[in-house]
Amino acid sequence: MLLSGRGSNFVALAESVAAGRIPNAEIVLVVSNRENAPGLERARERGIAARVIPSKGLEREAYDRMVVAALEEVKPELVCLAGYMRLLSPYFVEQFRGKILNIHPSLLPAFPGLEAQRQALEHGVKFSGCTVHFVDETLDAGAIVMQAVVPVRDADTPESLAERILDEEHRIYSEAARIVLEGRYRIEGRRVILTSGKA
Amino acid sequence: MLLSGRGSNFVALAESVAAGRIPNAEIVLVVSNRENAPGLERARERGIAARVIPSKGLEREAYDRMVVAALEEVKPELVCLAGYMRLLSPYFVEQFRGKILNIHPSLLPAFPGLEAQRQALEHGVKFSGCTVHFVDETLDAGAIVMQAVVPVRDADTPESLAERILDEEHRIYSEAARIVLEGRYRIEGRRVILTSGKA
Repeated sequence: MLLSGRGSNFVALAESVAAGRIPNAEIVLVVSNRENAPGLERARERGIAARVIPSKGLEREAYDRMVVAALEEVKPELVCLAGYMRLLSPYFVEQFRGKILNIHPSLLPAFPGLEAQRQALEHGVKFSGCTVHFVDETLDAGAIVMQAVVPVRDADTPESLAERILDEEHRIYSEAARIVLEGRYRIEGRRVILTSGKA
Repeated sequence: MLLSGRGSNFVALAESVAAGRIPNAEIVLVVSNRENAPGLERARERGIAARVIPSKGLEREAYDRMVVAALEEVKPELVCLAGYMRLLSPYFVEQFRGKILNIHPSLLPAFPGLEAQRQALEHGVKFSGCTVHFVDETLDAGAIVMQAVVPVRDADTPESLAERILDEEHRIYSEAARIVLEGRYRIEGRRVILTSGKA
C-alpha cells in the first residue's frame, strides 16, 4: 500500500483482509512519502510494516526507484494506492504493470485530478461516485475495475459529498482488490470483464 | 421540439403531455432539419404541427434564423431538442436563453458528442446514463437539470446499452421538462437546484 495521508482506504482494506473478505491476502508493507501521514500509525497499530520514504526534493523517477526497491524486498502481488499524492513514473508502472490499483473519488473519466468531489459539485452533476482502476502512466485514466454511484444532493457541500463517496470507496476497493488478486477478470481493450476465475 | 431522426424522445414527451404528466403543457410545433425524419410522421399522427426546414447547404446561423422565425410564430415556453443533430448558433441560444433543453445519452461531462454509448462502452465504465441539460453555445456542456444512471453490463453492445439508456431518457426528459416549465428550480453557478415552485 502506498499512501500520503490518513489512509482510510488502507484501513478499509486492512479490515477486509482481517475479516476474511479478501481471502489469502496479507498487507505486507505500507509506504508513505510523507513522514507525518496518519496512515503510518494506523498500519503499525495493526502490526503491519510501515515505512516512510520521503519524496521531498527528489525527481519522480529517482524517488520511484527507492519505492520500487522497498517493494521488491516484499514482492507484493498487488500495489494499492490509497490517497497517494504522486503520479507514478513510467519506470514504476513498468515494474508492476497490471498490478497497481488506485481509487479515485469520481466516476472517471469525469473529474480526474485533485478535489474531484468539489469539481463534481461545481459542475452540477446529479450523480458522482468512485472508481477503482489500474494505474498506468496517465493521470486517473487506466482501465476501470469497479465503480460505484453516489447521488449528489442539492444541499451537499464538497465535504458531505466526499464523506458519502468514501463509504462506497471502502466497499468497492476491497471487492476490486479481491477480484484482481483472484485473477477473476480479463482485459479487452480498455474494458475489464469479470470472469469466474483464473483460466 | 427540434429533431433530426426517429424522435423517440419527442414521442415520450408527447405521451407524457397526453397522459397529464406534464400539466398544462402542449407541444405546439415539431421542426426537423431532415425531410425524411420519422419523427415528423409521428407528430402528424398525433395532430401536432410538423415542419421540415432543410438545413442542407446552409450556414449555421442562416439556418438557425429560419428555425427561430418558425418558432417565434408559435412562441414556445420551452424548446426541446430530441436527437437534433446540429449545434445551435449563439444567435439561436440568445433568442431562447435558459429555455432550451437537450438530452444526451451519457452521464455528462463524460462522453459528450456522437456515439456516447459506444464511447462509454469502449472506455470501460461500469455505469453510464443520460443527462437533461440546458443548451448553451457549448457542445453538451450546459447546466444539468437531471441525470439517470444505467449500469453497463459485461455483455453489452453499444446497441443494448443504448436501448437501456433510452428507457431512462424517456423517463427523465418528461420529468425535467415539467420542472423547467413549472419553474421549480434555481441556478447557482452551474448547479440546477430544485425548489418548490415559482417564487
